[in-house]
Amino acid sequence: MASSQEDVTLLGAIGSPFVCRVKIAFKLKGVEYKYVEENLANKSEQLLKYNPVHKKVPVIVHNDKPLAESLVIVEYIDETWKNNPILPSDPYQRALARFWSKFIDDKVVGASWSAVSTIDEKEREKNVKETFEALQFLENELKDKKFFGGEEVGLVDIAAVYIAFWIPMFQEIRGLDLFTSEKFPKLYNWSQEFLNHPIVKENLPPREPVFAFFKGLFESIFASK
Amino acid sequence: MASSQEDVTLLGAIGSPFVCRVKIAFKLKGVEYKYVEENLANKSEQLLKYNPVHKKVPVIVHNDKPLAESLVIVEYIDETWKNNPILPSDPYQRALARFWSKFIDDKVVGASWSAVSTIDEKEREKNVKETFEALQFLENELKDKKFFGGEEVGLVDIAAVYIAFWIPMFQEIRGLDLFTSEKFPKLYNWSQEFLNHPIVKENLPPREPVFAFFKGLFESIFASK
Repeated sequence: MASSQEDVTLLGAIGSPFVCRVKIAFKLKGVEYKYVEENLANKSEQLLKYNPVHKKVPVIVHNDKPLAESLVIVEYIDETWKNNPILPSDPYQRALARFWSKFIDDKVVGASWSAVSTIDEKEREKNVKETFEALQFLENELKDKKFFGGEEVGLVDIAAVYIAFWIPMFQEIRGLDLFTSEKFPKLYNWSQEFLNHPIVKENLPPREPVFAFFKGLFESIFASK
Repeated sequence: MASSQEDVTLLGAIGSPFVCRVKIAFKLKGVEYKYVEENLANKSEQLLKYNPVHKKVPVIVHNDKPLAESLVIVEYIDETWKNNPILPSDPYQRALARFWSKFIDDKVVGASWSAVSTIDEKEREKNVKETFEALQFLENELKDKKFFGGEEVGLVDIAAVYIAFWIPMFQEIRGLDLFTSEKFPKLYNWSQEFLNHPIVKENLPPREPVFAFFKGLFESIFASK
């Protein structure tokens, strides 16, 4: 648990999968923090001051020290509060956790977001194919483990909250099949197990307003088609 | 030093800045390894087996355990061989090192490579501007330190070998100004200090064949303009 001397703030936005990663990590560690919702259409002075490089959420400020980039923050949380480890202790297993969480950001997030948001049909087909390929690697990697981290939620699970919560919402809004139980049975089972984990569950955003937000966003994108 | 029981192989390619990062990290630790030059136009069975996800170099194989992604490899090396630390021991400083090395991959490598390789003039202007903005952040971050890591070469320095060695070569071939001592005096001084560090120096590729390779590559790209 964070001692009373610690001052921890999270600048976030309700619909962001990257902010959700940080919330889950804090909760796994039992760290209390002050949450500040940012209006990304009108960014605060605080956000611009603490993340002048990317001007994005999440940002944490721990005893006046700011830090950005969700996976960097999750590792920082793991190294600062030692209880309930998020990364394995073995250097090779740690490296694999970093490899696969980076893989999710590099190969799943971009391709799946483009698949649901591009107005170009050929581009969409290409991105759907790339999403399938990337998810297949994760399906294979999961093997018969409960979580990517084994018996406990770890770095790759936290990174993959985007796959468990956001992709199903996007595909429902857009009427596309990206991540289904038929195509990725192990990954689908993992997603159900993960979303029902008590700490994950209480740190997911409320589905309805986030769904409505993205529905509106996609409608505005496709209205211009 | 690696013990004689350790079996370490690096699959690389002579002109790759990402492979060069791993070579520097191994040398800083005094790890002996077997180097295998890959022909990227005709990838080996070994490369496809050990890095089925990205099919790229560098890949290391340590006692039969394969690992890809240069920054993940460098952290693995740092955690496996504890002498001559590459990352700081303080969690916040470690996080900043990860933040800035990721920044180099996300904001410098892509923009500067596009700046020298795109045939579209508007695209080039945009990428030159983005490269300038990214390098300015690093210029500011360097402050009056000898290396990004302080008195010793660290993770960010190793990541930035691309800036010290590759960008000057690219801009000379293409006749563009991307990274000059006038515009980025601190970063330029850093690059000279870094390139002359004995361990860095002996692990850079020979400039002439790499220069010739990229000159030929750019000529083939621009011949089609």
